[in-house]
Amino acid sequence: MNGDGRLNPDLPALLRLARTENVGPVTWRRLMHDHPSAEEALAALPERARRGGRKGPLRIPEQAEIEREIEGVLSLGGRILTLFDPDYPPLLAELPDSPPILSMLGNPACLSAPRSVGIVGARNASAAGMRFAESLSTELSHAGITVVSGLARGIDAAAHQGALHGEFPEWGSSVAAIAGGLDVVYPAENAALQALLAEKGAVVTEAPLGTQPQARHFPRRNRLIAGLSLGTVVVEAAMNSGSLITAQLADRYSRALFAVPGSPLDPRCRGSNDLLRSRNAHLVETIDDILPYLRHAHAAAGQMSPGFAEAQEEWGAPSLTGDADLDRVRRMIPSLISFTPVPVDDLVRRCQFSVSAVLTVLTELELAGRVEMLPGGAVVQLMPDGTG
Amino acid sequence: MNGDGRLNPDLPALLRLARTENVGPVTWRRLMHDHPSAEEALAALPERARRGGRKGPLRIPEQAEIEREIEGVLSLGGRILTLFDPDYPPLLAELPDSPPILSMLGNPACLSAPRSVGIVGARNASAAGMRFAESLSTELSHAGITVVSGLARGIDAAAHQGALHGEFPEWGSSVAAIAGGLDVVYPAENAALQALLAEKGAVVTEAPLGTQPQARHFPRRNRLIAGLSLGTVVVEAAMNSGSLITAQLADRYSRALFAVPGSPLDPRCRGSNDLLRSRNAHLVETIDDILPYLRHAHAAAGQMSPGFAEAQEEWGAPSLTGDADLDRVRRMIPSLISFTPVPVDDLVRRCQFSVSAVLTVLTELELAGRVEMLPGGAVVQLMPDGTG
Repeated sequence: MNGDGRLNPDLPALLRLARTENVGPVTWRRLMHDHPSAEEALAALPERARRGGRKGPLRIPEQAEIEREIEGVLSLGGRILTLFDPDYPPLLAELPDSPPILSMLGNPACLSAPRSVGIVGARNASAAGMRFAESLSTELSHAGITVVSGLARGIDAAAHQGALHGEFPEWGSSVAAIAGGLDVVYPAENAALQALLAEKGAVVTEAPLGTQPQARHFPRRNRLIAGLSLGTVVVEAAMNSGSLITAQLADRYSRALFAVPGSPLDPRCRGSNDLLRSRNAHLVETIDDILPYLRHAHAAAGQMSPGFAEAQEEWGAPSLTGDADLDRVRRMIPSLISFTPVPVDDLVRRCQFSVSAVLTVLTELELAGRVEMLPGGAVVQLMPDGTG
Repeated sequence: MNGDGRLNPDLPALLRLARTENVGPVTWRRLMHDHPSAEEALAALPERARRGGRKGPLRIPEQAEIEREIEGVLSLGGRILTLFDPDYPPLLAELPDSPPILSMLGNPACLSAPRSVGIVGARNASAAGMRFAESLSTELSHAGITVVSGLARGIDAAAHQGALHGEFPEWGSSVAAIAGGLDVVYPAENAALQALLAEKGAVVTEAPLGTQPQARHFPRRNRLIAGLSLGTVVVEAAMNSGSLITAQLADRYSRALFAVPGSPLDPRCRGSNDLLRSRNAHLVETIDDILPYLRHAHAAAGQMSPGFAEAQEEWGAPSLTGDADLDRVRRMIPSLISFTPVPVDDLVRRCQFSVSAVLTVLTELELAGRVEMLPGGAVVQLMPDGTG
């Protein structure tokens, strides 16, 4: 249902488009830009995928499958929000690669809190690290700030608990972004916490019902944390940990980034200390190290990196490129893409065609399963089917 | 004895000038600039102090007292180095307020090591902090870098020990800058360490023999650590601790500054974390975080802050200001000085007279006991005798 209680009549088609094979967030958005409705985008998919080099048919879910998903979420007491929904979180809508579809339990207002902070860190955190995360979260909660985290063991769980169980438990709320489906509890030990968050805060995911969280789902979960927050605090993160991916995304989305210092003798602090070493993150000992930058970040929110933002300005504008030009772009782009991610802006600069033409061709290539549009505006070649 | 084994014939007068009441390092230097020899400077002192407003006589030590000090240091197997001595440490000579006199035990070459790092931190350090300081010191020592510290309990002692007792103990050396006299052991628990440093490294102080270290001596000791080092590492320092004074001096002397991150739950890390928060210090987890900046600092060494450096360019140039002008400066300066330290450069800018004239008058005022020239080129009013 939308803000005034009616079920959004476009939801099934919008969801069906999002659940179609090879349709990532940027391509979903591009398709909705290129076609007057989701139905028409769905109808155009086979031809566009074929143009991208797709041999076989594209897997588009059955209408019935989509209706089952919508009913399933409603029966859990949840909601499905599309990017066009008035309750869609504004901070997430600012991203160049906003998730087209969110499934959520709990209070949608928690997702749209005016001030929100992500807290992420190690699953195998130290007792001191968890104690710190918990008390920082409590302080943030008392200051009226929503704590967003990923419901993992360790730092995540401590952050949610601190936000929920402060001095004034009736005030507490927190948002959990999860990698799996709304009906999947993971990890099992956090089942009670997940239920409590659904009651007093919100639980949100991009994944369809029934999805068991796997390693490949976590970058999307991390993007939700970074995107839902004005700033992200990293507490005890080892080198190459998922928390650092969240940190990178926060930085790429021009959100504030914070890190908690820790002993150089503890490998769990290596990644968070590295954010401080490189001066990418503000050092956090207390909530006072966070508040000034949240105000700042709030004022600056919406300022994307100029390059990809420029690409997104095309959103809503008609596509003016002729077919002959497009054919030249179609011939050029595949040779510019490799297994190393390359920013879309670089592609535009290199091939000297319009942003619109490049996005049109990338959309075709993604539909064909030949490339993937990554969070933050980069594109990467995918292994041919069956080899990776 | 100087470098080629003879006793410097000027030493007694230079030392006597340095030991005279109210003669700080900047004033000593100024006096040696204004007068052809230390003897002539000593002869001019009473008149210059009177000009500064001194009522009673200035306490100049007896010649015999000075000779006893020199003999005392020699009988300990030590040396007294003046700023004019070829063995005077070059890094210390670069300071705008180099100590005129150093007393030392051990090997003077250790004071002139081409690469040296200060390590400072809490006396009541954690076991982890001491372990870190010790192993970092050992690594620095293996890399051929001299570790300078202050021979205090905790981090200092661990730093010296790490440098001396590495994998190759025959290589180890370290420099201890102390606050008291060479013949005073402080703290008593570090007596063996102090003896070992005198044997395998160096122990250096500005204080005369017999000086019991008191709180007011420690800023000078800290200045030696900062000044003898290309960079200073702060390990576990509480807010407002002496280690932060050393850090400030390193920064003011344009030397590299490093801090080791620590848990926000430990108040002993508050000051060191604060250096990282403010981005005044480079974050240190391993020796690799130090080495690149030492090279950089080495190349940059000698670059004072342009202001006070300018003042020091006058060193060696004749003083050209006429007596009438000086009288005007004498009338103006006292009203510009207060109990809040003010940079000498600001005084020069405000009173529109030459650096030389301002330093001449400040010298008179310091001799009179009315102001004190502080490390780093600032000046502060002193309480009148008997009131503070």
